[in-house]
Amino acid sequence: MKYQNQNLSEELLTVFSCSCHVLQESLLSSASGYSNYRGILNWCVVMLVLSNARLFLENIIKYGILVDPIQVVSLFLKDPYSWPAAWLITASNVFILASLYIERRLAVGTISEMTGLILHFLILTSMLVFPAAIVLTVTSMTPVGGVLSLGVYTVFFLKLYSYQDTNRWCREIRQAKAFFVCLFVLLFCLFCLSFLDMYYFLLAPTLCYQLNFPRSSRIRKRFLMRRLFEMVTTESKCRVFQWMVPTIQNSMKPFQVPNHLIWLIFFYWFFHSSMNFLAELLQFGDRGFYRDWWNSESVTYFWANWNIPVHKWCLRHFYKPMLGKGFSKLQAQIAVFLVSAFFHEYLVSVPLKMFRMWAFMGMMAQVPLAWFVGRFLTGNYGNAAVWLSLIIGQPVAVLMYVHDYYIYHYGTTT
Amino acid sequence: MKYQNQNLSEELLTVFSCSCHVLQESLLSSASGYSNYRGILNWCVVMLVLSNARLFLENIIKYGILVDPIQVVSLFLKDPYSWPAAWLITASNVFILASLYIERRLAVGTISEMTGLILHFLILTSMLVFPAAIVLTVTSMTPVGGVLSLGVYTVFFLKLYSYQDTNRWCREIRQAKAFFVCLFVLLFCLFCLSFLDMYYFLLAPTLCYQLNFPRSSRIRKRFLMRRLFEMVTTESKCRVFQWMVPTIQNSMKPFQVPNHLIWLIFFYWFFHSSMNFLAELLQFGDRGFYRDWWNSESVTYFWANWNIPVHKWCLRHFYKPMLGKGFSKLQAQIAVFLVSAFFHEYLVSVPLKMFRMWAFMGMMAQVPLAWFVGRFLTGNYGNAAVWLSLIIGQPVAVLMYVHDYYIYHYGTTT
Repeated sequence: MKYQNQNLSEELLTVFSCSCHVLQESLLSSASGYSNYRGILNWCVVMLVLSNARLFLENIIKYGILVDPIQVVSLFLKDPYSWPAAWLITASNVFILASLYIERRLAVGTISEMTGLILHFLILTSMLVFPAAIVLTVTSMTPVGGVLSLGVYTVFFLKLYSYQDTNRWCREIRQAKAFFVCLFVLLFCLFCLSFLDMYYFLLAPTLCYQLNFPRSSRIRKRFLMRRLFEMVTTESKCRVFQWMVPTIQNSMKPFQVPNHLIWLIFFYWFFHSSMNFLAELLQFGDRGFYRDWWNSESVTYFWANWNIPVHKWCLRHFYKPMLGKGFSKLQAQIAVFLVSAFFHEYLVSVPLKMFRMWAFMGMMAQVPLAWFVGRFLTGNYGNAAVWLSLIIGQPVAVLMYVHDYYIYHYGTTT
Repeated sequence: MKYQNQNLSEELLTVFSCSCHVLQESLLSSASGYSNYRGILNWCVVMLVLSNARLFLENIIKYGILVDPIQVVSLFLKDPYSWPAAWLITASNVFILASLYIERRLAVGTISEMTGLILHFLILTSMLVFPAAIVLTVTSMTPVGGVLSLGVYTVFFLKLYSYQDTNRWCREIRQAKAFFVCLFVLLFCLFCLSFLDMYYFLLAPTLCYQLNFPRSSRIRKRFLMRRLFEMVTTESKCRVFQWMVPTIQNSMKPFQVPNHLIWLIFFYWFFHSSMNFLAELLQFGDRGFYRDWWNSESVTYFWANWNIPVHKWCLRHFYKPMLGKGFSKLQAQIAVFLVSAFFHEYLVSVPLKMFRMWAFMGMMAQVPLAWFVGRFLTGNYGNAAVWLSLIIGQPVAVLMYVHDYYIYHYGTTT
């Protein structure tokens, strides 16, 4: 009732009212549409460093310095005169060269498509079976060495799969084109099917082959140095080991927050520092190694955005071909999760020489979880659910193995 | 050297290369310009809740339930038959009505500008001296009751200062205008100088008076309920008390992270939940109670953005008038910090009946700190420095008082 005569009041407002208020929403209200929380990320880093400093000190006081160089080396080597993991990784070149050889034969048409496919199938299968057999039989192989070499083989498996797939597509397109273009394409392909091109692809931080990768114009030295500093800074590693050992020793605490933090540090170290370092060095232009999974409001969004190289591979060489073969989207999705679950299990069980299926089941549990979150939760609630599943779910899976490993090898958990 | 013939390769790319990579930066690289970390905020909330749940359980196990209703009441009241804080706050109406009475006299010209100014000065001075004297002399006043009543008096002091200042400006503008407009303005002013207008201003979540506040069109019931839920949810309070007591009892730990978290919870509770609740109830349109201080890259930016009502008041009624009187910007800034330091000290020392100057010095230390951060740090480093000063600086100041208070009243810190 104070403002019945709006016109008068408005005129007066312009005359003198010394107005200092405007109609607006608070930034934290969702109605404001505001989302710049870069500072919160810095807060997290500061809090991490501070609380780590505290935990670090507390751990040193409690357990003494646990990371001595000999112990670190002993994670990789049991016997300093036998380097099984290094030899195993070197042996992967045999498969790589075989694959390149077959592609060259296929490009000039000396062997038929079918023969090529069978040969590739044999190579790829043996790339999974051979290292697993070595890891399981060679007694001087440590679990860390085993994970490392199986990891390298799995990455090369995915890369070579992409390599032969992409080259086959190229040949298929070539067959549908005119003769003159074909000649160029043939020459170009042969040029591409070189050792240099093959090894560039194998080193590049991607799992998907294409004939012409986008390249950055120059190597930024400061950028390279910063990433290198982040990579080699002993902080993360020291802290990881400092934490790990006590955490393992009194495992099964209600909430394994440090475990989750290790995962976050690992994510940054691997997907940001290391991959960007490698890409900068190779002038590899596509730095989309992850997307904004921290904002993910559904489990599906998280899995599609936290690990882009693998996601891209799954989409390009598994999901889309399956759709092309007439499977439904849901079937293809479940199949992708199955493959992913298989590799998770493969990378954990074989090096630990324990077949417990926790990793497989953890991965497959994502399917009903994704359905549940997608069905009942949206927005910030969905995001909180994704975080919760990460904070609680994943460390529990890790601790299952650690717990079983200790019981298996030492008889107790203490 | 692979791409000498760019034209051919580009043609071929468009023909078939099954390209799946684009030139792009990683999101976490500053070059990407990306800043949507809403999910990180959710992560913080989830982590807070989880670690609180743990701390909460640990505290209950260690110390038992410390928050019993009688204890809470006893924070406000020593003697249930004497309510000094409540009476003191009620007494503030005398000053409010006196101020309104003087303004009405001034509006119709019954008393001179000078008389009005002197009377206002007397009222405002006694608004600071009177409650302080009461708090210091009345023995049944608890520290919490003292802080509460002094806080209310300080808020009313700032509001009435703004009230008389703004009304004087209006009269000055009025004098410079033509007769006809003046008549309207006079009527309008008299209309504004009502009890209703005065009490609306005193209740509204702002310290700056203006004749016509922007109003929201309606009360959003769901919004109101959500803010009310956030306000009354016992979580924060319980946890604050649960934490506070053990923290105080073994004070002087290296990093008082819980203390910082309490401040963050308080910030959200006061500046987001409570103020928005009040504003929604009063249909007060201007919800800019804080800006994005979490991104602040300098100390000055933090102080100018975390508490907008006070900042606005300082700017409008102190900083700008000082500039108008010919002072330099630096002088005016230091003066604002001096006034702020005085009020911080006033609100802490008087209720605790201990004059230690920690709050005053803490506030004044912001001036060299602001200079240092502004001079040497920018971007994310500046932001981290601001966070560090908040995480470490402020809890230290609080603990100084707590520590001294315990020594003063109980002789020891244990």
